[in-house]
Amino acid sequence: MPRLSEVITALDALWPAERAESWDAVGTVVGEPDQEVSRVLFAVDPVQETVDEAVGLGADLLVTHHPLYLRGTTTVAASTFKGRVVHTLIKNDIALHVAHTNADTADPGVSDALAGALDLNVVRPLVPDPSDPEGRRGLGRVCELTHPLTVRELAARAAERLPATAQGIRVAGDPEATVRTVAVSGGSGDSLFDHVRAAGVDAFLTADLRHHPVSEARAHNPLALLDAAHWATEWPWCELGAAQLDEISDRHGWDLRVHVSKTVTDPWTAHVASAPTSSAMGAPN
Amino acid sequence: MPRLSEVITALDALWPAERAESWDAVGTVVGEPDQEVSRVLFAVDPVQETVDEAVGLGADLLVTHHPLYLRGTTTVAASTFKGRVVHTLIKNDIALHVAHTNADTADPGVSDALAGALDLNVVRPLVPDPSDPEGRRGLGRVCELTHPLTVRELAARAAERLPATAQGIRVAGDPEATVRTVAVSGGSGDSLFDHVRAAGVDAFLTADLRHHPVSEARAHNPLALLDAAHWATEWPWCELGAAQLDEISDRHGWDLRVHVSKTVTDPWTAHVASAPTSSAMGAPN
Amino acid sequence: MPRLSEVITALDALWPAERAESWDAVGTVVGEPDQEVSRVLFAVDPVQETVDEAVGLGADLLVTHHPLYLRGTTTVAASTFKGRVVHTLIKNDIALHVAHTNADTADPGVSDALAGALDLNVVRPLVPDPSDPEGRRGLGRVCELTHPLTVRELAARAAERLPATAQGIRVAGDPEATVRTVAVSGGSGDSLFDHVRAAGVDAFLTADLRHHPVSEARAHNPLALLDAAHWATEWPWCELGAAQLDEISDRHGWDLRVHVSKTVTDPWTAHVASAPTSSAMGAPN
Amino acid sequence: MPRLSEVITALDALWPAERAESWDAVGTVVGEPDQEVSRVLFAVDPVQETVDEAVGLGADLLVTHHPLYLRGTTTVAASTFKGRVVHTLIKNDIALHVAHTNADTADPGVSDALAGALDLNVVRPLVPDPSDPEGRRGLGRVCELTHPLTVRELAARAAERLPATAQGIRVAGDPEATVRTVAVSGGSGDSLFDHVRAAGVDAFLTADLRHHPVSEARAHNPLALLDAAHWATEWPWCELGAAQLDEISDRHGWDLRVHVSKTVTDPWTAHVASAPTSSAMGAPN
Amino acid sequence: MPRLSEVITALDALWPAERAESWDAVGTVVGEPDQEVSRVLFAVDPVQETVDEAVGLGADLLVTHHPLYLRGTTTVAASTFKGRVVHTLIKNDIALHVAHTNADTADPGVSDALAGALDLNVVRPLVPDPSDPEGRRGLGRVCELTHPLTVRELAARAAERLPATAQGIRVAGDPEATVRTVAVSGGSGDSLFDHVRAAGVDAFLTADLRHHPVSEARAHNPLALLDAAHWATEWPWCELGAAQLDEISDRHGWDLRVHVSKTVTDPWTAHVASAPTSSAMGAPN
Amino acid sequence: MPRLSEVITALDALWPAERAESWDAVGTVVGEPDQEVSRVLFAVDPVQETVDEAVGLGADLLVTHHPLYLRGTTTVAASTFKGRVVHTLIKNDIALHVAHTNADTADPGVSDALAGALDLNVVRPLVPDPSDPEGRRGLGRVCELTHPLTVRELAARAAERLPATAQGIRVAGDPEATVRTVAVSGGSGDSLFDHVRAAGVDAFLTADLRHHPVSEARAHNPLALLDAAHWATEWPWCELGAAQLDEISDRHGWDLRVHVSKTVTDPWTAHVASAPTSSAMGAPN
Repeated sequence: MPRLSEVITALDALWPAERAESWDAVGTVVGEPDQEVSRVLFAVDPVQETVDEAVGLGADLLVTHHPLYLRGTTTVAASTFKGRVVHTLIKNDIALHVAHTNADTADPGVSDALAGALDLNVVRPLVPDPSDPEGRRGLGRVCELTHPLTVRELAARAAERLPATAQGIRVAGDPEATVRTVAVSGGSGDSLFDHVRAAGVDAFLTADLRHHPVSEARAHNPLALLDAAHWATEWPWCELGAAQLDEISDRHGWDLRVHVSKTVTDPWTAHVASAPTSSAMGAPN
Repeated sequence: MPRLSEVITALDALWPAERAESWDAVGTVVGEPDQEVSRVLFAVDPVQETVDEAVGLGADLLVTHHPLYLRGTTTVAASTFKGRVVHTLIKNDIALHVAHTNADTADPGVSDALAGALDLNVVRPLVPDPSDPEGRRGLGRVCELTHPLTVRELAARAAERLPATAQGIRVAGDPEATVRTVAVSGGSGDSLFDHVRAAGVDAFLTADLRHHPVSEARAHNPLALLDAAHWATEWPWCELGAAQLDEISDRHGWDLRVHVSKTVTDPWTAHVASAPTSSAMGAPN
Repeated sequence: MPRLSEVITALDALWPAERAESWDAVGTVVGEPDQEVSRVLFAVDPVQETVDEAVGLGADLLVTHHPLYLRGTTTVAASTFKGRVVHTLIKNDIALHVAHTNADTADPGVSDALAGALDLNVVRPLVPDPSDPEGRRGLGRVCELTHPLTVRELAARAAERLPATAQGIRVAGDPEATVRTVAVSGGSGDSLFDHVRAAGVDAFLTADLRHHPVSEARAHNPLALLDAAHWATEWPWCELGAAQLDEISDRHGWDLRVHVSKTVTDPWTAHVASAPTSSAMGAPN
Repeated sequence: MPRLSEVITALDALWPAERAESWDAVGTVVGEPDQEVSRVLFAVDPVQETVDEAVGLGADLLVTHHPLYLRGTTTVAASTFKGRVVHTLIKNDIALHVAHTNADTADPGVSDALAGALDLNVVRPLVPDPSDPEGRRGLGRVCELTHPLTVRELAARAAERLPATAQGIRVAGDPEATVRTVAVSGGSGDSLFDHVRAAGVDAFLTADLRHHPVSEARAHNPLALLDAAHWATEWPWCELGAAQLDEISDRHGWDLRVHVSKTVTDPWTAHVASAPTSSAMGAPN
Repeated sequence: MPRLSEVITALDALWPAERAESWDAVGTVVGEPDQEVSRVLFAVDPVQETVDEAVGLGADLLVTHHPLYLRGTTTVAASTFKGRVVHTLIKNDIALHVAHTNADTADPGVSDALAGALDLNVVRPLVPDPSDPEGRRGLGRVCELTHPLTVRELAARAAERLPATAQGIRVAGDPEATVRTVAVSGGSGDSLFDHVRAAGVDAFLTADLRHHPVSEARAHNPLALLDAAHWATEWPWCELGAAQLDEISDRHGWDLRVHVSKTVTDPWTAHVASAPTSSAMGAPN
Repeated sequence: MPRLSEVITALDALWPAERAESWDAVGTVVGEPDQEVSRVLFAVDPVQETVDEAVGLGADLLVTHHPLYLRGTTTVAASTFKGRVVHTLIKNDIALHVAHTNADTADPGVSDALAGALDLNVVRPLVPDPSDPEGRRGLGRVCELTHPLTVRELAARAAERLPATAQGIRVAGDPEATVRTVAVSGGSGDSLFDHVRAAGVDAFLTADLRHHPVSEARAHNPLALLDAAHWATEWPWCELGAAQLDEISDRHGWDLRVHVSKTVTDPWTAHVASAPTSSAMGAPN
């Protein structure tokens, strides 16, 4: 059975810490280098729910995409919800390892998993990593559809193929417009509009899009926008990561049990559609 | 018929420029002080669609909540979409006046209109303006429901009473929890969580809520969150502002025709719900 | 007749926007890409006087050296004098295009025109642009006189050859010193003293020189300084620019009428010399 | 005969160091507290010329308005011109004391002396010092003329009453406009335009005015501007300061000999007017 | 037996978190609010040695003066020495609470304990806390000696009364000078020289003094400086804090066992005096 | 006899100013370029004591390692202790030249002299200067011992070989540990721990080490730390520098008398060891 330090070395080889953004907080957050690891759980969010799932599963290592302390903390007291996560992990001898922007840009990375879930053919990174001579690593992916779809059909495929969430998929632009090329980026994508426009794609699927960036993007050009739940766009990476670790485990004869969290940590729990004859002023345009 | 400078003086009395946030960009953006005004259009967004509506209506003055140039510009060339707005306004002798954070905190202001649209009884500002001795001005409103509702029922009321949008209302928290007190804030509200928690309300209705702030808010305490479309939470203020200007016009004998834009400038045009049996992993928790 | 976008493409080829300083604000400020252009006016300052001249002239495009909004604006309301300029331009279908620090460093640029007006032989840029392999572009010019002149004679030539202004030419240093080499830089030049000293010239002609920089420069070494009116040092570029556009127009068969503004927008309107026996304390040293 | 520390205490009472701007560098720059003082020289600039004058005069203390090291130095080596000033002072046992923005705002201060030289009746400070309950201290002065003058006549009075300089007086605005009220501020005044406009005066006399601030001020409103030589606007303060120290000396029985520098350290040494028929384009507007 | 939250409430009453400096990191760092507390250990440093001592002692709560994470951390992995401290604490159900600059300025606080250990009579805070109407709180203490001592005698008393360290006490200034008044400040004190000079004391005892601040302080005035080991100057506060908690425990009937760490965490382990006839150049001056 | 400018040229060749850190303040601080130099004194600190020594010696040039005004000054008034140094130097025609971080990194530099004094064999710079193709220049030195010593023995050698100071040598770590490799850096070295750890040496000798950096360094790994007096670690460079100037003088036939200051300007004047049975709590660990 491998020690934590050995498993971490393998994870670091998949997602090297030095490839994370300077503002990021990746790597091992909790855990003793010499503790033994037999069961691993992959999840998007390091929250009490996924930690409790890890405890229930008897996991020794929880690997998440989101950092626990992005902006640094001076306390892990259990009176804070993040401190309670640390206490639960240490008390149950569960290590926590984070792969965030280093996993976003990896090859394959978060947006490769997202593209795969949507049956999209990856062409190139949306924002290539200048340090990669082969131009495969980078943030987001520019993709082609095998067969053109309307925006509505692409949204329906996303709603069907991504983990179900209360939010579903929001669409901006003509639902009947044709889509042949699409850029995808897991997580918050409203800082990437310049790159998306430069890529000249028909549509852009990402998460956490807000009023002003979307309105201005639409005013710039008729690019269709699809907004899925942040968690749902990054959950596919958990399956990818688990599969990668499985393969490493087999190669090393570690006999690891690698699981993917079934807990939906997307915060939205319900959705109420606008009534078509809302008393205010009329149906959406 | 009043000159633009007289109408602006009246609008400034309702929403004094000095009460806007230091980062904001309120006041008259386009227009000649001496041009005559007979027809006014209120809208949320100063975009080509509402400007074209103003041209079609023969308006002389467009009053919007959102600024045209929040971060300052060195060009109004028509090759930029905002420049085209400026050219359309000037060529058609239409002035543009903005009331943004000075209207947010006004008494009555944007969140009063939002509370009114939802039949909520305003108790106090969520973030009182320290310069107001009477404590009525400020950002957001803390409200009470005449009769308790479940979170789902409150969401349904919002979906029904606010202008219809493709997004509808997203809910985080237990849909069946009871709501007696609710904080509301028009527009992007994810910087107000500390104030909302301090107010001790059961629910918070605002817009543009993203994954991390919502997840962390939910981890803090079981506060229910309702996310409506940014535009829909601020449209009710247009009706309020138009009514206020109507009343001023009568008082001055200006005989102004004051309209409220019917153009839905919320960018979301369609919504596709997650399939309950989405192939990924199962229904929302 | 060419469309504005075609003429702008030509102007951008002369003075590429990317060669402007990062703090600058060059390019098209007002105008519709498809509007037709037959008459163009060159001026230094985008002020009401030159805009009224453009209206009177029936110009379709005003090209100026100084930007209209160097520091960005959130309003173009006609209640502001710059807003009135924008309203006058748009109402009279006159576009505005700015070429500022990109014209300063161009080859030929503002200081070439200034050197030409003074019969000076350009040797090299005072501050070479590192991105120019041929070392011809850059700020200011180091020049040689065909025949040596005294400082007083050089000042007299400047007063005679540059457009007349109330200010005339101020001189610091020994008026009878001999000048063989001179650095010139149109506009405010008091940030260039280190470069001027390094060039080892006998004199430096520029504008907007103030007490402390001049006193310290004089204390450093006996470099003669000639201060002409800011506007007057940059007006020769208008003639150069107009000639360059004329030539382009001929080449394209555009048949453009290209004019140079006759309006003196130097703000100084009068000059009163010190009385030789001023009651205070005596004649200048 | 008083020691330096005693004379400095008296000067600090006139111009307390704590009333200088935070960016300023006032107080004693060179000198031994116990050295005896019998002869004092007042000057505007601490330059080699005024220091040599002090040596020739046998002065023990040089008091100047301008600081020697405004931005701090790490060397006083004589290879630098300011270092040579320090070496000359110390070798000749001459102390140096600076009263700059603390003298600007004093009551009486630099602008009182300037107003006095121009026969103007001081009404109030242009920028009152909030820490002065009596509202007499502050930057610049708002003045009234005993009898109205045209702008040209006021400029002629300034040229006649202020120490003669090669620059003379530059005027912006209608030379024939009538002046009843005028704001004056010794030294560089182009940061005070907002205050001057708020004061509603007919004219503003100061120094070091440059193209853009003057053009924009003139575009704002028809305020006449008079630009004298920086040194000339501050030299009257030397007479005021010398008189004040004389009076203190008498009171203490110090028998000080107090002189005012006759050295014109305004850097401009000659002026050449524009030829009325300058070959370029015509007389000034 | 009290829960941790109750003990923390008592400690917060002694050293309120809001009285810490804004850059500080005080309060509970590890621990579950509901865990029971019967045994408490006070120490200066939250390092592996004191944590091991707490484990050996069966403590439930470790209270330290120095924060564990002053600048915030994004990981508590046991591969880092601070992370190993967190893991040891949580695995052994030991809470960690920090009272740092809020204990420095408390009344009584760190410097009161230091003064007490040295038999000094506290007169007032060296840097009074403006928010304390009674003027008793603040950083450092100004003290009087009951009987004057020479600097050497005071140093000997400090060496004798403070916990023994390899460093002992360094002295700057005349060892035979007389001391009647002394300022003391536990921990690094080289930012307090201005306050110490203003207090006009004969000597200043603190820690972590470096060459340049000491040389410049000595050049300013003949103030004697005594430099003890950082840890030794703050260890007396552990005794004071333990006694205060004991008293609170008695009052609440908590029956707490409160201990003070015996582990010397001063890092210096040996000291070698300069040989009087060191081959370099001679005995100290 | 050489002029000051010639000697400075020679010193600049040894320690080029451009190789100093950007925050540093090296070069000639006082002196007239043409003054003659026959006698030179080297010292660490430009303080009154070494300046008085220079006056007593009849020196013409004082060369120090520490700058006089590191952060720039706006006054050299003799009422300040640094101003008194300037007055004494100028009155006695003594120049002052500083070689600080440019001497630290020179080859040979400050840490070479320190290593030499301790009989250590220099291997390479601790922090190589990237601009040195030969990799010999840089901050600090990594050294080897000819024969291994215990930490205590190395500390004893330092106490014996470096100029005697009241402080002596402080040691952190096991005094009996064996040392084969040691990094040395004259002056304050607590910013170099990362480099020292990366060099993998057994011990690090420097100065001005404080509690927190030393405690954390020790927690990182068992690296032994030796803290000598700041002045003592830099005094050996004076001998090195004097020898280098002697050699230059012979080469130029200048016949310079070059001295090394005997004044100990280390501020510590006495040391009192902790009593082994200090009443507080026991002997050091």
